[in-house]
Amino acid sequence: MRKVAIAGYGLAKFTKEQKPIESLMLPAVKSLFDDTKNLTQKDIDTVLVSTNDNTKYLASIISELAGICPKISHSVESLCSSGANTLVSAFSYIRSGLADVALVIGAEKADNPGNVLNWDVSRGEYKHPIYWASLFTKAHMRKYGTTKQDLAYVSVTNHKNAKENPYAYSNKEYSIEDVMKSKNLTEDLRVLDCSMPCAGSAAILLASEESVRNFTDSPVWITGIGQKTQSASFTKSVELTSMNSTITASHDAFGMSKKNPHDIDVVELHDAFTIFEMMGLEDLGFVEKGNGKEYVKTLYETQDKKINPRGGLIGAGHPLGATGVAQIIEITQQLSGKAGKRQVFPANVGLVQNMSAAATSSTIIIMEA
Amino acid sequence: MRKVAIAGYGLAKFTKEQKPIESLMLPAVKSLFDDTKNLTQKDIDTVLVSTNDNTKYLASIISELAGICPKISHSVESLCSSGANTLVSAFSYIRSGLADVALVIGAEKADNPGNVLNWDVSRGEYKHPIYWASLFTKAHMRKYGTTKQDLAYVSVTNHKNAKENPYAYSNKEYSIEDVMKSKNLTEDLRVLDCSMPCAGSAAILLASEESVRNFTDSPVWITGIGQKTQSASFTKSVELTSMNSTITASHDAFGMSKKNPHDIDVVELHDAFTIFEMMGLEDLGFVEKGNGKEYVKTLYETQDKKINPRGGLIGAGHPLGATGVAQIIEITQQLSGKAGKRQVFPANVGLVQNMSAAATSSTIIIMEA
Repeated sequence: MRKVAIAGYGLAKFTKEQKPIESLMLPAVKSLFDDTKNLTQKDIDTVLVSTNDNTKYLASIISELAGICPKISHSVESLCSSGANTLVSAFSYIRSGLADVALVIGAEKADNPGNVLNWDVSRGEYKHPIYWASLFTKAHMRKYGTTKQDLAYVSVTNHKNAKENPYAYSNKEYSIEDVMKSKNLTEDLRVLDCSMPCAGSAAILLASEESVRNFTDSPVWITGIGQKTQSASFTKSVELTSMNSTITASHDAFGMSKKNPHDIDVVELHDAFTIFEMMGLEDLGFVEKGNGKEYVKTLYETQDKKINPRGGLIGAGHPLGATGVAQIIEITQQLSGKAGKRQVFPANVGLVQNMSAAATSSTIIIMEA
Repeated sequence: MRKVAIAGYGLAKFTKEQKPIESLMLPAVKSLFDDTKNLTQKDIDTVLVSTNDNTKYLASIISELAGICPKISHSVESLCSSGANTLVSAFSYIRSGLADVALVIGAEKADNPGNVLNWDVSRGEYKHPIYWASLFTKAHMRKYGTTKQDLAYVSVTNHKNAKENPYAYSNKEYSIEDVMKSKNLTEDLRVLDCSMPCAGSAAILLASEESVRNFTDSPVWITGIGQKTQSASFTKSVELTSMNSTITASHDAFGMSKKNPHDIDVVELHDAFTIFEMMGLEDLGFVEKGNGKEYVKTLYETQDKKINPRGGLIGAGHPLGATGVAQIIEITQQLSGKAGKRQVFPANVGLVQNMSAAATSSTIIIMEA
């Protein structure tokens, strides 16, 4: 099987700006073309769009707007993890030989239709994601003694990291006290425990090992992929302190890449709410179960940027279809030494966790320089 | 590269019934499970949904409803050719080794949001597909002397074929006179020149060559794939008597399968309007350019079922996301000798053409017994 690498990328700033979805996508695509040497429209044989937007035929529309006539083009949707799903799809087209160079564009409007879980009757009135995040938080507090202050470390660190990310939605720093005093939305979660829906877009160019060096001298290889869908509805999640889809998917991704958690230098975790950063650290095997709280305190104290260097979803914002793509771009920048003030040392192997709807499904991607 | 085959399928009748999208999908999935030997939910590692429906997270929802916990799950959208796009995506997952057994479910509600081309400003007020079909028809008439009676042959033949398809939307036979006298919708197109939007669903099981014989003794192999997106908007189509995306995609599909038009025994053409059956016959190389009209007259006179044996989109109905999947099922049934009264002899090699939006994009799939 031939190898697949990331050959280029482009981002547009995450904002609350109201724009048509096509207008959100184009700046990220333009930035990708501007920054990728030798790339012309004719090189691209696949255009995949990651979004929850209801516009039809969007992959063809953005192709035409960008002057591309691809072979393969369509939209992919899987709620908050549409981005990683689309990347994996492009990977499989290239690896199978159907494609050679694929453009993946993730984009979302701020008022996208994926923010409320209308389809999950098992959630009763509690359709907004914050309600299940609150259940997870309560369970973690009961079982492991996690505190509201532990949650606050995540928010402070990720907002601080986002300050060095020019594309992040948030550019404010907050103190532990700011988070502790921010408005309560549920009994245990505050505004600053939450990622913010926003508009944004991100684009990645994937290429086969035969073609990638036409476009970059520092390709980043996708070496591990794991995906798992447990369910769609919340009540099928048997346990409230673990994300089973993440555990299963990471097992497959580590197996495919022949890596283990100790090999990972830099990580993008799906911190839709603060509790998920702790659970992610535990379920991915970076710390023992229940020790997520100590680790996030250490990250806060040492200002280590190993976890969510671009600010995570909490700092960077969460434009659903763009999130997974932006996470993969951050790891690409880290592994190719182009992360500027966010750069982690060493950065040879990275991991992305992108998930949907209370971790009912997860995608894990392992990348290597 | 390992081979990929169709291991099973299921259909639900195309109707005008108003049902939630999940309720439309389940009967096709149940039928697939009922008719596929040894298949259990645990065998399926990929669930892909083909639809224009706006429901989010639908691949996870239908997975949970069907008792499946796949690795890979998401929705794919590319307007009228969502079905063939999704099938190709599942093919690439299996061929690349990321998946082994994939369930593809195509479904659409009758009032789906893909029927009006709101996104194409170049169409001016003429947003309904019939207006561009009318432009194609006029151009074909001018250039090749095609007549309204020639168009009527297509409608009569396809409605007649659909009578032997228990899942078809239409079960009426029409005479040439019926078509000629049916209500004019544009200057040259009548109601009976058009495929009807309707509700419907169709499901296909794809498997690797290592696994397919667990589920069927007569696998049908996917041996050729070609896809092309020319544009999204109508005004980018340079010519009105040819479908350039179909020409390019079929060239690639014939090349991959090492077949040519003379090798094809049975064909599913995307006859959204009668003119497209003639143009498809010409652009796929089954007849010389301009001779589509003679060929459809011969099909009418001889009652040869080689083209659109299930009734095409005109006879079977056009539930967008289900159409491509149902076309592939028809060729599967033909190539495995299970098409009943619709059976074509011989049937060793088949071809599917599924396209979107005035043939601005096309997918061609070649299949072999």
